[in-house]
Amino acid sequence: MSVQETKYFEDYVPERSFDCGSFTLDQAEMIAFAGQYDPQPFHVDPVAAKDGPYGGIIASGWHTTSMMMRQVVGSFLSAESSLGAAGIDEIRWPRPVRPGDTLHVRAVVLEARRSQSKPDRGIVRTRLEVTNQDGDTAMTAIATNFVLARHAEA
Amino acid sequence: MSVQETKYFEDYVPERSFDCGSFTLDQAEMIAFAGQYDPQPFHVDPVAAKDGPYGGIIASGWHTTSMMMRQVVGSFLSAESSLGAAGIDEIRWPRPVRPGDTLHVRAVVLEARRSQSKPDRGIVRTRLEVTNQDGDTAMTAIATNFVLARHAEA
Repeated sequence: MSVQETKYFEDYVPERSFDCGSFTLDQAEMIAFAGQYDPQPFHVDPVAAKDGPYGGIIASGWHTTSMMMRQVVGSFLSAESSLGAAGIDEIRWPRPVRPGDTLHVRAVVLEARRSQSKPDRGIVRTRLEVTNQDGDTAMTAIATNFVLARHAEA
Repeated sequence: MSVQETKYFEDYVPERSFDCGSFTLDQAEMIAFAGQYDPQPFHVDPVAAKDGPYGGIIASGWHTTSMMMRQVVGSFLSAESSLGAAGIDEIRWPRPVRPGDTLHVRAVVLEARRSQSKPDRGIVRTRLEVTNQDGDTAMTAIATNFVLARHAEA
C-alpha cells in the first residue's frame, strides 16, 4: 500500500507492518528544539554535555518522538480517516539519539477492533519503533488511535 | 522548596507535589508546531478542522507534551541532578487543548527508590498532570527519571 493511498480502519490488520521512512537530526536542530521545550544541559549545552551523563549532546526524547510522529502522519495515518489518539503507552528510549543519527520509523499493528458504540470507526493499537543507522533501537512506544472505517458495519 | 533550589534524589519523596506553573497556547503556535511535527488537518487547517472531529483546531498532543516538559524542567527537575528519563507510561489526552487554553502543570511523586547498582542515584516515578483553566484534565502521564542523590549511600 503506497503512502498516497488513503488508509481506513479495515487496512490496519494485526501484524501488518508499515514502513514510515527515515529522518536525520543534526546538533543545531537538537539544541533548537530542546532550547524551547527541554532545556537540560545534555540537550542544549555542548560543553556541559561533554562532561555530562551521555558524553555529548543527545536529542530530547520529545524531539525524537515529534519527528517520529511526522513520519507516522505521512506514512501510517491518513488525513481522511485519522480521528486522533486516545493515548500512548510504554515510551522507551533505550539508546540516546546523537547528532547526525539517521532514524528509521516502523509501525506494526498489534490490535484492531471496531468501536461498539460508534460502528463507523475502530480503535487501532500499534507498536512504533525507531531504529538508528546501526540497527539499534532508539525508541519504542505503543499508540492507540481512533480511525474511521471505509464501511460502517451493519 | 523554591524553583531555584537544586533538587536531588532525596527531595523526591512519595506523595510530594510540585507546582510546575502554567502556559498558554494560541492557534498560531499550535499550527506552527503541528505543521512541523504532526500535520493532521485538525491540528493545522482551521477550515478543515471546523468540519473535523473536534469542531476546530486542537493542539497536537506532542505540543502539549513538549510544553509540559518545559515546565517540568524549570520546576521539577534540576540541571545538577537530572540524568534523563528511562521512559514515559500511560500518556492520556482526555480533553483537547484549544487555542487560548491556559494549562497548569503539576508533578506528584509516586515512588522513589535508590539504584541497587549505582548508589549515587535513584529512580523516581512521577505522575504528571496538565489541567486547563476550567479545571478539566487535558493530559496525564507517568514519568520515570534517573536522578543523582545528594549523598551516595554507604
